Amino acid sequence: MVAPESGEQPQPALMPSSPQPATGEIGIALLGCGVVGSGVAELLSKKASDYARRLGRPVRLVGAAVRDLARTRPGLAPSQLTTDPLALVHDPRVHIVVEVMGGVEPACALILAAIEANKPVVTANKEVLARRGDLILARAQERGVGIYAEGAVAGGIPILLPLKRSLVANSLSAIYGIVNGTTNYILTRMAEEGAPFARALAEAQRLGYAEADPTSDVDGHDAAYKVAILAGLLANRRVPVEAVHREGIAQLAPIDFAYARELGYAIKLLAIVRRVGERVDVRVHPTMIPDSHPLAAIRLVTNAIAVKGDAVGEVMFSGPGAGQLPTASAVVADILNAAEHLERPGTLMAWPDPTQAEVVPLAETVSRFYLRLRADDRPGVLGSVGGSFGSHGVSIRYFVQKEGSGTQAEMVFVTHPVREGDFREAIAAIRGDGAVREIEAIVRVEEDV
Amino acid sequence: MVAPESGEQPQPALMPSSPQPATGEIGIALLGCGVVGSGVAELLSKKASDYARRLGRPVRLVGAAVRDLARTRPGLAPSQLTTDPLALVHDPRVHIVVEVMGGVEPACALILAAIEANKPVVTANKEVLARRGDLILARAQERGVGIYAEGAVAGGIPILLPLKRSLVANSLSAIYGIVNGTTNYILTRMAEEGAPFARALAEAQRLGYAEADPTSDVDGHDAAYKVAILAGLLANRRVPVEAVHREGIAQLAPIDFAYARELGYAIKLLAIVRRVGERVDVRVHPTMIPDSHPLAAIRLVTNAIAVKGDAVGEVMFSGPGAGQLPTASAVVADILNAAEHLERPGTLMAWPDPTQAEVVPLAETVSRFYLRLRADDRPGVLGSVGGSFGSHGVSIRYFVQKEGSGTQAEMVFVTHPVREGDFREAIAAIRGDGAVREIEAIVRVEEDV
Repeated sequence: MVAPESGEQPQPALMPSSPQPATGEIGIALLGCGVVGSGVAELLSKKASDYARRLGRPVRLVGAAVRDLARTRPGLAPSQLTTDPLALVHDPRVHIVVEVMGGVEPACALILAAIEANKPVVTANKEVLARRGDLILARAQERGVGIYAEGAVAGGIPILLPLKRSLVANSLSAIYGIVNGTTNYILTRMAEEGAPFARALAEAQRLGYAEADPTSDVDGHDAAYKVAILAGLLANRRVPVEAVHREGIAQLAPIDFAYARELGYAIKLLAIVRRVGERVDVRVHPTMIPDSHPLAAIRLVTNAIAVKGDAVGEVMFSGPGAGQLPTASAVVADILNAAEHLERPGTLMAWPDPTQAEVVPLAETVSRFYLRLRADDRPGVLGSVGGSFGSHGVSIRYFVQKEGSGTQAEMVFVTHPVREGDFREAIAAIRGDGAVREIEAIVRVEEDV
Repeated sequence: MVAPESGEQPQPALMPSSPQPATGEIGIALLGCGVVGSGVAELLSKKASDYARRLGRPVRLVGAAVRDLARTRPGLAPSQLTTDPLALVHDPRVHIVVEVMGGVEPACALILAAIEANKPVVTANKEVLARRGDLILARAQERGVGIYAEGAVAGGIPILLPLKRSLVANSLSAIYGIVNGTTNYILTRMAEEGAPFARALAEAQRLGYAEADPTSDVDGHDAAYKVAILAGLLANRRVPVEAVHREGIAQLAPIDFAYARELGYAIKLLAIVRRVGERVDVRVHPTMIPDSHPLAAIRLVTNAIAVKGDAVGEVMFSGPGAGQLPTASAVVADILNAAEHLERPGTLMAWPDPTQAEVVPLAETVSRFYLRLRADDRPGVLGSVGGSFGSHGVSIRYFVQKEGSGTQAEMVFVTHPVREGDFREAIAAIRGDGAVREIEAIVRVEEDV
């Protein structure tokens, strides 16, 4: 239980399942007080009078649930800290629950407890939404409680609210972009300085852009959570993260960036969801895009998301996709929006139907491919590889073989659009080719995402 | 008066000053049915079932006020047309009034009539907001009626709603960007092909991007209306369009683009508003920005707006800033949002205080300048011009004089940051210099907007 403020008696929980009507002060519970949580506490304390003016009533942090009570937290009195998050959720002074702990549990249980108590939830936790979104959104829908998650997808870049409200007149056909700053930083260094992956990663770690264990970023898990959430909004049905086809960036080598440049492409880790009839095609993978595409100009840790709609055409949103205050900016906006809709969440803000969308199997999708392989440097190899492509219906748009260095040669192909399943069968045949030593890189090429 | 639908009796105006509670169908009045209005009618008719599902109740176009009843309008029955917009505003079946006529009158009178009748107004009319915003917003505030204007600023690009809702946790320090597609098209052609202004303008006119009378675009009036609206949101007070410092693009020559490229700059017509203490600095003018700035990559008719806030840092929104369906996308989103908030407009959606913001006089602002002049090609001229700069406290960062062609030489200067008033005094002195034939171009340089 959160200790009462000094001189104040603890208020009895008169209506535990229904918070006090919020005609006066809006009380906030903060679950978790790490990087983002401290940023939220800082904004709520520093800009309290500004927010009160905008909303027409004050917003106050009732308490924060933390693991370590001993650590001092700027903007929070020791009496506001508790190690019992569930008691904080049920505190009758709390109207809105802000979950910034991360991870699946106990975050999911606490979010569900808040929904049962009719308290809107603001979360910046992409993992819990991507993994337990079905449970959370179904229960929130049944009880008419708002779930706000602007901070979960693109840090400070407004994307969920623009999708739900500003682009509501559109049927969306695609959402795609750069949603992970760590990998975009690494790819930028690899492209601009020819740095190998390991060196660019080490640099990102040194600067605090990558974790000591960088798996979640470099293997595309983080981007997959985010695109699963975006895919839900596009399809208006739930897309579980397990359905997202995911490839990381660790296989890319500086030479691939050199070839890409020669061909007029940039390489970006793109999260992509497209509507294909009643189904969706949803994936995260390194992608070659034309140099002239606006996403090619998105450098370092900046994120950017493009949205295609039948009325608007294409719009793009870019900015800081992570970081303490940018993410807190999104979380606090959600708090203020939730406060305004406390009695009745807006219908336009509804989340997708919790039933699952049908996802197009990867083998059925159509892409262009960049392929780099190492083979014996002798006549006839191109004929043999070309034959494998041809017999699987893969037609080649571009081929180059640089001067071989002795016994082995590097061959680079770019295909015309081809069914992924056919391409994979051709690759299996090429792998079995005695002259082919190694398939070194396969990167999808998107001329027009 | 709008004719009733066939087989339906006209409904009596029971409560002319307060529309029927909108528990069922939401009725829309369309004032004006030109390019944008027809797009709105098309979306409302084509996507009616989609909108009904999202909103939870149907949205129906009651009628459209037009000038010419004889013209056929796709998506509108002849019985839905009227030449009496005021009667349509007062039609009891109408809950939301959509003004897409453009111009100041009768648009302003009709918007005020809608407010008196407690009917929310959706408008895509930048001019009426920039010129009569004080009247309209004050009256709307008094009566608690919502005014929605997403289509007025950047066509299909979401900007007002993201500013009001998504970035509400921030104090905004600057909003700047490319808000006129016609001039951006002309500047792109001048930069990329060395086309002179007149030829690029003619091309824009041929493609339908520029009007026969292009004044409103090329002289910066259109951009000034838009930045006046944005400045109001930044300052939270009204900024009248007359207070916007405005320069057009007609003075620019291909040679300025060549110099800009040499110096690492692009030239864009930027609309800029910055907070300066309690005042705002608000202007529209051609601006040299670094090649690496994201706005430098915004080509042709695309628009883009960057926003700086104390929590988020900087975010950018880009896309189609005009056009029938993109603008209709914004107008219909406003209609749906207004419908959701019919009984009570959101407090976060409030417009600025209608009192006027104080604007920093241009002479007090500080900029870098690019200056190109033609002078006699003889020794001592640089010394004399440099003396004029020096005696007014203007320090020069860059100077180049290309090979003279006979008797006259072209001199190009870029200054360090300087008070505009001091720079103007230096220019007056240089104009009076006997050796200086012509000041040919002055363009502000923004290293970091």
